[in-house]
Amino acid sequence: MAPVFGVRPQTIDFNDSIFGCRKRTILGVFILVVQLAVVADPLQGGEPDARYDSIAVRLIETGLRTTEAYDMLKSLTAKAGHRLSGSEGAAAAVELTRQMMKERGFDRIHLEPVMVPRWVRGPREEAIIVREGEGGADLLTVCALGGSVGTGDGGVGGDVVEVRSFDQLHELGQAAHGKIVFFNRPFDRAKLNTFEAYGGAVDQRSRGAIEASKSGAVAVLVRSMTHALDDVPHTGAMGYVDSVRKIPAAAISTLDADYLSNLLKSGTHVTVRLTLSCQTLPDVPSANVVGELTGTEFPNEVIVVGGHLDSWDKGTGAHDDGAGCVQAIEALHLLKTLELRPKRTIRAVMFMNEENGVRGGKGYAVAPERTGEIHVAGVESDRGGFAPRGIAVQADSTILAKVVRWRSFFEKLNAGNIIPGYSGVDISPLVEKGVPGFGLDVENHRYFDYHHSDNDTIDKVNPRELELGAIVEALLCYLIAEEGL
Amino acid sequence: MAPVFGVRPQTIDFNDSIFGCRKRTILGVFILVVQLAVVADPLQGGEPDARYDSIAVRLIETGLRTTEAYDMLKSLTAKAGHRLSGSEGAAAAVELTRQMMKERGFDRIHLEPVMVPRWVRGPREEAIIVREGEGGADLLTVCALGGSVGTGDGGVGGDVVEVRSFDQLHELGQAAHGKIVFFNRPFDRAKLNTFEAYGGAVDQRSRGAIEASKSGAVAVLVRSMTHALDDVPHTGAMGYVDSVRKIPAAAISTLDADYLSNLLKSGTHVTVRLTLSCQTLPDVPSANVVGELTGTEFPNEVIVVGGHLDSWDKGTGAHDDGAGCVQAIEALHLLKTLELRPKRTIRAVMFMNEENGVRGGKGYAVAPERTGEIHVAGVESDRGGFAPRGIAVQADSTILAKVVRWRSFFEKLNAGNIIPGYSGVDISPLVEKGVPGFGLDVENHRYFDYHHSDNDTIDKVNPRELELGAIVEALLCYLIAEEGL
Repeated sequence: MAPVFGVRPQTIDFNDSIFGCRKRTILGVFILVVQLAVVADPLQGGEPDARYDSIAVRLIETGLRTTEAYDMLKSLTAKAGHRLSGSEGAAAAVELTRQMMKERGFDRIHLEPVMVPRWVRGPREEAIIVREGEGGADLLTVCALGGSVGTGDGGVGGDVVEVRSFDQLHELGQAAHGKIVFFNRPFDRAKLNTFEAYGGAVDQRSRGAIEASKSGAVAVLVRSMTHALDDVPHTGAMGYVDSVRKIPAAAISTLDADYLSNLLKSGTHVTVRLTLSCQTLPDVPSANVVGELTGTEFPNEVIVVGGHLDSWDKGTGAHDDGAGCVQAIEALHLLKTLELRPKRTIRAVMFMNEENGVRGGKGYAVAPERTGEIHVAGVESDRGGFAPRGIAVQADSTILAKVVRWRSFFEKLNAGNIIPGYSGVDISPLVEKGVPGFGLDVENHRYFDYHHSDNDTIDKVNPRELELGAIVEALLCYLIAEEGL
Repeated sequence: MAPVFGVRPQTIDFNDSIFGCRKRTILGVFILVVQLAVVADPLQGGEPDARYDSIAVRLIETGLRTTEAYDMLKSLTAKAGHRLSGSEGAAAAVELTRQMMKERGFDRIHLEPVMVPRWVRGPREEAIIVREGEGGADLLTVCALGGSVGTGDGGVGGDVVEVRSFDQLHELGQAAHGKIVFFNRPFDRAKLNTFEAYGGAVDQRSRGAIEASKSGAVAVLVRSMTHALDDVPHTGAMGYVDSVRKIPAAAISTLDADYLSNLLKSGTHVTVRLTLSCQTLPDVPSANVVGELTGTEFPNEVIVVGGHLDSWDKGTGAHDDGAGCVQAIEALHLLKTLELRPKRTIRAVMFMNEENGVRGGKGYAVAPERTGEIHVAGVESDRGGFAPRGIAVQADSTILAKVVRWRSFFEKLNAGNIIPGYSGVDISPLVEKGVPGFGLDVENHRYFDYHHSDNDTIDKVNPRELELGAIVEALLCYLIAEEGL
């Protein structure tokens, strides 16, 4: 496609999308106006700053030659393992990432203490299904949902009743009393964006125990939040309210959810005994890990870039969100390597406790260290370390328009999809205070195959895709640090 | 981002990229012109045909609900296994895909015979490295390159000399005589597009034996064509010319390439004995598999969509190119399911023998069945069954501009990246005759980790990503079938 009057190629679709391909007369007028405009004021119009084009290219050439982000992630997942808040792994991860920042010569490296919840899974999680009249018993593949109460050693038994929504549950009325409620609404596979499918199903996990308890149920089983059909249960946060009894809650693998559902469909009367040894212990101290490239002109104006250091206790949280953590460190490291000292401070933050409390994100926003600081932006990568597609902008239309003007730089990184959208959980306390939030948007079809499960391990991460995410963050942070918002 | 005067959101970047954000006056004039244009002739301007928007949505909702493409690929790879031209697997694949077309009710299903080369690997491929002075020996992980001559039972022995380019080889002069030349130039990791990295290294595989033989070498070892650092050799086509002696050629895993290189760097004198039992047998009959949705208005105007049915004899060719084959079948199946009977014929072709001869592609273009047919377009998916990014257009600027005007439909499929580029090997004989070619452009960072190796198996394919590629092809074919080019 040949440029028209030095205007970038994508302008051609614009012409066409407005005028239609046959509207040559008005198209001619339009081109004339464009031409006059460009001629009239070349200083303001035309190509964006060639400096950033060059920086985008240097970031790619520097970053993609290495596997820095991947090597950090390998180290983090191998040495710390899973990093559930309050665990030994989480404590090890704090030290490991502090050390990574030190080795890369960041400024003002420090920990910011936060108290975190401590939920522990314990040794037992078991669901035995007993088929009436057959005398047989078999095991369902389950795991406790994060935050669930335990069942006691004897477990909790009950007949299973399947529902696909809270409405269905409420329609059951007394019929749910004394039962184990089995929430089995699958992901809507037709959603192109897998996060929408997740958002459309996750109420079963997060509020299922509350709603079932209101109906007198004794426990809940929740279909795992995943597109995959396999025998791996996916954990995740669930909640209680004080006004109803806290009942145990477990995720069941999608294969066993289908199995159980088919049993029920066949008219079989199904009783399950669920045993969970999980419990919540008192809060323990932990910390966010913070390091930065201090701004040369406006050191108190801060761009935060981060991910969450904690994970669930299944797999090793490679995608969720070890990836986001090492990408933030690598973003700063890339800028340092290229000797791009930013005007404003760019700060990497490893947030603690996103999964079950957001204590790190909330704590960061109000920590004493914030006094005198102005937060210009928050950037988060928490959708897996997959190939980046672009940036989701959680800010007003003026800021969105400003970032959209940088699109050509991000197109060089295959990440030109700049859209309004959600940024990230850890930076949400900043966003709520009016700070513009940015979320790394990635190719997400595979994400929920791994999410919150034993599948989330380093072998699912591609070194180039992970590094490219770090490159996109580096460029975004640097642009904001130099140009402001 | 709020639409301006009903104009699509991306118009905003256009304004900005031309005028700069502060150029409000001229922006005002521009918007006025747009507004007048839209008001002046609403029938010609404004939004593109809402019908295709709706079709894009229906294709997603129909396709992504299923795992049709994946189920076909599972069947193909499990039942046929690898499908090297002339192998039993290739013959089985012809029958399997013909059957898949039958089950889906395609029109005019038939085979178009082609003669294909028959190269067989044989039972032995072995490279033993002997370290001088130590008396030890160890095995390097190698596999014969496709088309290589064998070594005879005794193998071929020689000292190893490493080069990274043909220039380096030629500088060696007589020093390469009687040696085994080890081509060890790695992929340039800094290339964002992995196909560029491949293109920058693959001369070592394709022409290495010719150039080394000219220098009097007795065999070649070629670093595997991959970004991955692992112990899996990657095969692929290599050639000879009649004017120089044909010497054996093998790929060596990247780990062992590094190992061998480090040995040589340390000053160790390294001798290798290479034994390959591969050989080329006489050509055998095979076939392209063809089925279509015959056009309702212009049945002799044809849009071909395909992939290649043959694979290398490592792994099961899941990404290369089982994916492209099942996507073509699924593209037609989706249109049938939605009862979208095209005006022009949309034809799925499973091309035979892309990997080592392109006999299928060449044969299709000149087959007797082509008499009276006009080929409007060729569409190929042969870059792996990964998440689609867009469409590479190998055609003149008028056709490119036409397809770019359809971008908004493809953006609905996360595949709006419509760019000039290469289409596909199998349709290249059509493209050479002036037929516009279209290649499915995909997220390609992982591709060469699997390509032409035992790694290329169904577990590396994500059902949603694969299906989405089929959806993109369905939409592209249908648009061309309805609108022409």
